[in-house]
Amino acid sequence: MPHQPIASLAEGAVVQQYFLVRAAESRTDKSGKPYLSLVLGDNSGQLVARVWSDVLARCPGPFVPGDHVGVQGQVGSYRGELQLTVRYINTVDALRDMGKSLEAYDPDLLVQATPYDRQELWQDLWQLAETEIAPPLKDLVLHLLTQHRDAFLVTPAARLYHHPYLGGLLEHTWFVARHTLASLNIYPDLNRDLALAGAILHDLGKIIEIANPPAPELTVSGQLLGHIVLGWDLVRQAAQTLEFPDPTLLLQLEHIVLSHHGSLEFGSPIPPKTKEALLVNFLDDLDAKLKMMSQHLESDAGPGEFTSYHRVLQRGLYKGGLVSGQNGATEPEPEK
Amino acid sequence: MPHQPIASLAEGAVVQQYFLVRAAESRTDKSGKPYLSLVLGDNSGQLVARVWSDVLARCPGPFVPGDHVGVQGQVGSYRGELQLTVRYINTVDALRDMGKSLEAYDPDLLVQATPYDRQELWQDLWQLAETEIAPPLKDLVLHLLTQHRDAFLVTPAARLYHHPYLGGLLEHTWFVARHTLASLNIYPDLNRDLALAGAILHDLGKIIEIANPPAPELTVSGQLLGHIVLGWDLVRQAAQTLEFPDPTLLLQLEHIVLSHHGSLEFGSPIPPKTKEALLVNFLDDLDAKLKMMSQHLESDAGPGEFTSYHRVLQRGLYKGGLVSGQNGATEPEPEK
Amino acid sequence: MPHQPIASLAEGAVVQQYFLVRAAESRTDKSGKPYLSLVLGDNSGQLVARVWSDVLARCPGPFVPGDHVGVQGQVGSYRGELQLTVRYINTVDALRDMGKSLEAYDPDLLVQATPYDRQELWQDLWQLAETEIAPPLKDLVLHLLTQHRDAFLVTPAARLYHHPYLGGLLEHTWFVARHTLASLNIYPDLNRDLALAGAILHDLGKIIEIANPPAPELTVSGQLLGHIVLGWDLVRQAAQTLEFPDPTLLLQLEHIVLSHHGSLEFGSPIPPKTKEALLVNFLDDLDAKLKMMSQHLESDAGPGEFTSYHRVLQRGLYKGGLVSGQNGATEPEPEK
Amino acid sequence: MPHQPIASLAEGAVVQQYFLVRAAESRTDKSGKPYLSLVLGDNSGQLVARVWSDVLARCPGPFVPGDHVGVQGQVGSYRGELQLTVRYINTVDALRDMGKSLEAYDPDLLVQATPYDRQELWQDLWQLAETEIAPPLKDLVLHLLTQHRDAFLVTPAARLYHHPYLGGLLEHTWFVARHTLASLNIYPDLNRDLALAGAILHDLGKIIEIANPPAPELTVSGQLLGHIVLGWDLVRQAAQTLEFPDPTLLLQLEHIVLSHHGSLEFGSPIPPKTKEALLVNFLDDLDAKLKMMSQHLESDAGPGEFTSYHRVLQRGLYKGGLVSGQNGATEPEPEK
Amino acid sequence: MPHQPIASLAEGAVVQQYFLVRAAESRTDKSGKPYLSLVLGDNSGQLVARVWSDVLARCPGPFVPGDHVGVQGQVGSYRGELQLTVRYINTVDALRDMGKSLEAYDPDLLVQATPYDRQELWQDLWQLAETEIAPPLKDLVLHLLTQHRDAFLVTPAARLYHHPYLGGLLEHTWFVARHTLASLNIYPDLNRDLALAGAILHDLGKIIEIANPPAPELTVSGQLLGHIVLGWDLVRQAAQTLEFPDPTLLLQLEHIVLSHHGSLEFGSPIPPKTKEALLVNFLDDLDAKLKMMSQHLESDAGPGEFTSYHRVLQRGLYKGGLVSGQNGATEPEPEK
Amino acid sequence: MPHQPIASLAEGAVVQQYFLVRAAESRTDKSGKPYLSLVLGDNSGQLVARVWSDVLARCPGPFVPGDHVGVQGQVGSYRGELQLTVRYINTVDALRDMGKSLEAYDPDLLVQATPYDRQELWQDLWQLAETEIAPPLKDLVLHLLTQHRDAFLVTPAARLYHHPYLGGLLEHTWFVARHTLASLNIYPDLNRDLALAGAILHDLGKIIEIANPPAPELTVSGQLLGHIVLGWDLVRQAAQTLEFPDPTLLLQLEHIVLSHHGSLEFGSPIPPKTKEALLVNFLDDLDAKLKMMSQHLESDAGPGEFTSYHRVLQRGLYKGGLVSGQNGATEPEPEK
Repeated sequence: MPHQPIASLAEGAVVQQYFLVRAAESRTDKSGKPYLSLVLGDNSGQLVARVWSDVLARCPGPFVPGDHVGVQGQVGSYRGELQLTVRYINTVDALRDMGKSLEAYDPDLLVQATPYDRQELWQDLWQLAETEIAPPLKDLVLHLLTQHRDAFLVTPAARLYHHPYLGGLLEHTWFVARHTLASLNIYPDLNRDLALAGAILHDLGKIIEIANPPAPELTVSGQLLGHIVLGWDLVRQAAQTLEFPDPTLLLQLEHIVLSHHGSLEFGSPIPPKTKEALLVNFLDDLDAKLKMMSQHLESDAGPGEFTSYHRVLQRGLYKGGLVSGQNGATEPEPEK
Repeated sequence: MPHQPIASLAEGAVVQQYFLVRAAESRTDKSGKPYLSLVLGDNSGQLVARVWSDVLARCPGPFVPGDHVGVQGQVGSYRGELQLTVRYINTVDALRDMGKSLEAYDPDLLVQATPYDRQELWQDLWQLAETEIAPPLKDLVLHLLTQHRDAFLVTPAARLYHHPYLGGLLEHTWFVARHTLASLNIYPDLNRDLALAGAILHDLGKIIEIANPPAPELTVSGQLLGHIVLGWDLVRQAAQTLEFPDPTLLLQLEHIVLSHHGSLEFGSPIPPKTKEALLVNFLDDLDAKLKMMSQHLESDAGPGEFTSYHRVLQRGLYKGGLVSGQNGATEPEPEK
Repeated sequence: MPHQPIASLAEGAVVQQYFLVRAAESRTDKSGKPYLSLVLGDNSGQLVARVWSDVLARCPGPFVPGDHVGVQGQVGSYRGELQLTVRYINTVDALRDMGKSLEAYDPDLLVQATPYDRQELWQDLWQLAETEIAPPLKDLVLHLLTQHRDAFLVTPAARLYHHPYLGGLLEHTWFVARHTLASLNIYPDLNRDLALAGAILHDLGKIIEIANPPAPELTVSGQLLGHIVLGWDLVRQAAQTLEFPDPTLLLQLEHIVLSHHGSLEFGSPIPPKTKEALLVNFLDDLDAKLKMMSQHLESDAGPGEFTSYHRVLQRGLYKGGLVSGQNGATEPEPEK
Repeated sequence: MPHQPIASLAEGAVVQQYFLVRAAESRTDKSGKPYLSLVLGDNSGQLVARVWSDVLARCPGPFVPGDHVGVQGQVGSYRGELQLTVRYINTVDALRDMGKSLEAYDPDLLVQATPYDRQELWQDLWQLAETEIAPPLKDLVLHLLTQHRDAFLVTPAARLYHHPYLGGLLEHTWFVARHTLASLNIYPDLNRDLALAGAILHDLGKIIEIANPPAPELTVSGQLLGHIVLGWDLVRQAAQTLEFPDPTLLLQLEHIVLSHHGSLEFGSPIPPKTKEALLVNFLDDLDAKLKMMSQHLESDAGPGEFTSYHRVLQRGLYKGGLVSGQNGATEPEPEK
Repeated sequence: MPHQPIASLAEGAVVQQYFLVRAAESRTDKSGKPYLSLVLGDNSGQLVARVWSDVLARCPGPFVPGDHVGVQGQVGSYRGELQLTVRYINTVDALRDMGKSLEAYDPDLLVQATPYDRQELWQDLWQLAETEIAPPLKDLVLHLLTQHRDAFLVTPAARLYHHPYLGGLLEHTWFVARHTLASLNIYPDLNRDLALAGAILHDLGKIIEIANPPAPELTVSGQLLGHIVLGWDLVRQAAQTLEFPDPTLLLQLEHIVLSHHGSLEFGSPIPPKTKEALLVNFLDDLDAKLKMMSQHLESDAGPGEFTSYHRVLQRGLYKGGLVSGQNGATEPEPEK
Repeated sequence: MPHQPIASLAEGAVVQQYFLVRAAESRTDKSGKPYLSLVLGDNSGQLVARVWSDVLARCPGPFVPGDHVGVQGQVGSYRGELQLTVRYINTVDALRDMGKSLEAYDPDLLVQATPYDRQELWQDLWQLAETEIAPPLKDLVLHLLTQHRDAFLVTPAARLYHHPYLGGLLEHTWFVARHTLASLNIYPDLNRDLALAGAILHDLGKIIEIANPPAPELTVSGQLLGHIVLGWDLVRQAAQTLEFPDPTLLLQLEHIVLSHHGSLEFGSPIPPKTKEALLVNFLDDLDAKLKMMSQHLESDAGPGEFTSYHRVLQRGLYKGGLVSGQNGATEPEPEK
């Protein structure tokens, strides 16, 4: 039985496949019997699951976030959301120890990640920095990309609201940087090096703010300091290491990183006071909001021409405009 | 004596040249004598002028907004702003009647206008609509451009805050449309026709909202209804005339026009509920703010590395980043 | 067994009567068995109902919004709200086909509607327009009333918050118009024709914004454009048809319609700039809020001298002030 | 030479008449010579005046707010506002002592006051309370009116923004009370006695908050406590004195007074939680805003179809709608 | 079996002990059977309990808020929160009537109260007033403390958000008064008597606003008028009784009470206009927020270094900083 | 002729003494003649001065901010503010070169500074850190104090709004730190070392944000980055240098610095999430606001019991409460 993507599961579906455990909690039902409430994930989405007491007796676990598990069950719904009633569950490790065949087990299917090839995104971003930015900013950008390559390749762009998956930061950064390059053709009076360096580095602090990419959570320093100043600190320290030769230029780059949320009430300690900072602020916000729209539209399986209310965007979205195939691929692809 | 652009006048300068009267008001000085307070303009800016009572006796006028006048005087300053003390003033018409030589009079120098060739902007915009938008939206856009060509070529984009000059709407629309085209390469999943049509038509209502382009003022319908709904009405009526065949597509275009200010508190009766509307909202806002920054930076002749406080942007701007010549021309130019 | 109004049902009540299906959703219970979650309505309110799997097997439906159904069951409560456990359910059509007696079936009892006689409200509103407004505004108002009579008689004033029932728009408009007439005696310097025409037409766009009056839902154009501009467009087109002779007067009427929400953040693209627009804005808002208060007070069956928190009004309401009979009838009645 | 109302003075007018001194300040001009800056008033408005040093030598004063003065001079303008250059000034008392004829002196012309007959307003308000309110609220209202009659007849409704003149509170209260009476016919389910008593007493605290009606200023308790709670205290104490028999009814009246500004950010410590409180809140706000509009429209003598920006209403107003004579008298008159 | 504090109960715990009934509601389960939903309390917290239909048949009650009850049951969890499944329940009164031993029953364990000795807090507060405040403010403060001693000793400081328990107002007032005394050493230019009197009396109106301290609820006058003006009224009336000799000083004290919420949007009809009012406003707000933090940190038993989101503070709190024992006692203690 | 403090100058005063030039600007008067507009300062305040053209011819300067100048002139007023008409002006350096006696010249009188002995404040603050904070935070605080001693002794706490003078940061920090120490006695459960270290370091970034203490101006990095993150960076770098041993403790200190403005809209990228951060946030804000009140009350020489409107505090202040001598010295003094 091949893996059925969570996004394609419908009420009534019978499942026998592998999942990632994203969250696990012990509870008791109304009659006082213990049961397990799980959030299971694969690369297409998330699903709430219940292991009722009778099953739990046979499959006691324990199951913790990050576990890969084999599951049998059936999809029902509760309060309007799909929910999996589990009939059997065990970890891949335990199944392996029991000598079970894991033929159908493919760990790549279980973790949600950017739909793009991360190596391609990375090389394209690197090349953009190398060919489009002049020194000394080029040196600084490449130094930081080199230094934080591993984290940059996996970190999500956010824990919940947009690109909340493996490689999300890279995907988001790629879009903002590519868009900045395109915008500079329209507004050639902006400082090209500055805008591009700012676009690539604006969210760098996310690699410190967000931990555990497959099941993203905020770090202590992320919650006590925030990614904006953490990213600024990374840039500042790298510039110190490289003995960056142009302090005024550096200040403007630092300003882009600090001001990229656009205004104080959105968490920037300073509003954009240069055109380059304004551009990065707008293109960052635009990419995040377009992605939120895409995610919300994709996750909406209900009837009607409008989605449910989006809590962050504070509106429902129009679904009628999606004309399949009109604009080619259903997913944007990086330019080659 | 050649025309000295207002933007280049400094304290102490002696002037003998032509100006446009943008505003005129009769006042009395502290000793009770009448004098004239004028705002004079040319294609580089505006200047306050005073015709004190002794001069006024010799040059009684009258002078009304829109007059082209020959002026002699000297530039001083009052409360930190330049001010012209007039020693002689008369209208070009009167001077002509008096048989004076008007050799140095060039009306083109007196009216502030977009720095771009308006014919080129227009043709480029037209071509963009013709080649990049598919029917039926292409037909609707070209119909509206044809219908409102004369007004579109002269109307400012705003009375005060950005592009407040002849052809400002055309310049602003050109930038938003070109930028939209560039952005669609980054976000190919958007409906291309819709986004481009929305970009070109989003501010169309300005041609009704703003009258008298050389000295822009708001019309009664502009102040009682506003350009957002006036533009929507133009689109709606044209679609009716053309018997636009796709009502759903039309609704989405109307939605872009109505929602392009991005949120209720900025005057849109509805927030953007499609990706195309979101894109046009962002690129419109970005172009306006970048232009406000440019205008404020250019008008700041004072010392220091920051401009004065900008009332709309609610911040001072950093001037230190302007590196002359670094990015080529000091003014952006339309792509050929 | 006579029809028991939903508003009078208490926990434990046994019901055997007819309802309107307002919403229907298939779900599965914790043990994975399918059940049906319904919202049933009559002319006094709404009630959540559950058709558990055993009953569902006997009464498979299907049941869709708008259906009139015969139901047997008992009222319980869940999480503090009443809930009907269904023991039998079938559509009136099916029951008829089965030859059942439908003696007790009265469709008039099932749909929530204004407590007033809609024909009387309509005639009174018409007469008000005919006798109190002078031409040319009278002609415009009567033309629009004639043109949209059918929709005006049934459309709710809102989907959820106030007058969300058949004839709600008519009731609301009647109150605002009558109140405007009364206020003009206090403020005779206002333009009487303008204020009255604005009062009658201010919410006209609701007839396009809201569809399916018995179970109101927002239309696509309602959600993409909104009733404010849709109503303005109706007025504008009618004026064009009638070749309305006084463009300045028309502009002021259009302004009342566009500005009647009072400020940008409440969705008007322009704030009221005339006294007539201010008056209509206040009396519209006051009628909506008084109705919300009435509805909230009536729906509050709990103990205590204050209602629960009202999400829109952002406060609880005082119930102690309701002195039965002090002011005559429990419901206001239109003046004859 | 008859008294020329300030509101009718134009640039160039020669004046020889009497004024009220509303403010007086000694200054020095640029050459270091002392001069006097005055604000003069009459029953039609206010005017800035200058007594330059040469005149001041002859007319040394002193002049203090409240003085009635005889003045000769000419009207000019400074920075766009009219300004009187004084050629002679002396107090009426000094002129009388000097044996001058004061034939043209009419103190009634000098103080700004409600355009209505205050005795008529008072009697009408009293009668409204006596005939329309039932005991025990009638007794409480009449007791408070009797107790504070003198202050009620002279206090302005505000220091600056609306009805800022002798009898302004009475005029404002009369309109709110009359309007409440009219509204109760539309909404008969409201508690009539409560709404009317609240309408009459809502602003009673103004008699403590504002002192010196001809030149209104805020008292210390007005600025440290505010009229809302001061008025509540007056009601509460009167009820104690009268041993008001219905504590629940009294609480609701107190609530109307405390909540009449409608929300916390406008200074009410509590929002309206009853329909009666909501009604008084709306009709109070409406009367104040309509009066602000009237005052702003009347004070706008400039060209154009819109007034200047109104700082409190945050908009310019449309002037084009004023059609002289269309609705009868240019000033509303109390119903007889 | 000794009393197990609610705060220490974990899933699976078996309980046989006494509780306070804080809320009680009759419901029916999905199969239509009636059950009872209770909120039980003791001096350490609150717990939701369910009496399912089979148990309810044996233990029909009735049970009302305020009852002391004996309970047997087991702790489970529902939707992530602990919940007690009751196996037996009866009131202490009924148990006594049945001749049951009530040996383990200790009413002091059932009511949540300040952790401090209320008599000590009271005496310390009294002494502070007596020794640190000079007449006539001392006389006024002591008069009010004497007059309202009984209520002051039991009233909570709030119904929900901070110090929501017996003696909470006293504890809060003690902290604010002690803190004010300490702050006056840093800012000796403030009026000491005024600041201390204001600190002690600022929340006095709570004794009228909140009723029934063991299960706090808002009174009608509390909801229609609010504690700010109610407290002001108490001060004002006491001053009248005492014929307070210094009206200016009294006004400033009244101002502190009215302005202690700091701004209009937080319910003060006037913002602090004196240094003393500003100090009391800050120290009141600080004590409330510190207590909210303490309560939220203590109630958070979950894993992770941050608490859940606090709805009033609008943030999660950092838990990692709590170093047990570092600063001595886990609870602050009044200075002796 | 002894130095007359600017704060004591009244209209008509003749001055012959020394001032600091705080600002200088060349202008022309209405007749086109050049004059000089100066802002002069001494240790008591600031004063606008005019050097009209005739005087300017004799005293051509140049005069630049920071110059100490000898001045003769007379105090007049313009638009309600005092203004000095200069009759002679020259720099102290030029006067010295001319061999003039500078007997009365005392540079200490010319610069506005904290009224406290800065050395005493410094030693007291140092001692507080040394005796009240335990390692390792003590070491970090002392390291930073040592490192930045010179700047800390002179930097103002703000450019305009509070403590805008030499040593202002030191004075402000001293008050916040002392107050924190006092508050910790009331709230002993807080981490003492953390709160005190945070209190001392919270505004450290001001030493980079503000330059030129006698005439404070914002630096480029101050305007592009802001003192909050600049101070955080100083703390972070010092901790790195010292190899601070407790990363969790350090994070909490960094959090205090970053969150000390209390909320995002006031410029902190993160709100306070610990009690220590909340305490420092409150005591910082309180000290700034109390100082603003003091400064505004002191600068108000006008009549009436309330000051003019304070633009930042958004209210007028009550002056009647100032009872000279009641609480000892007119200025608070550091505790010894």
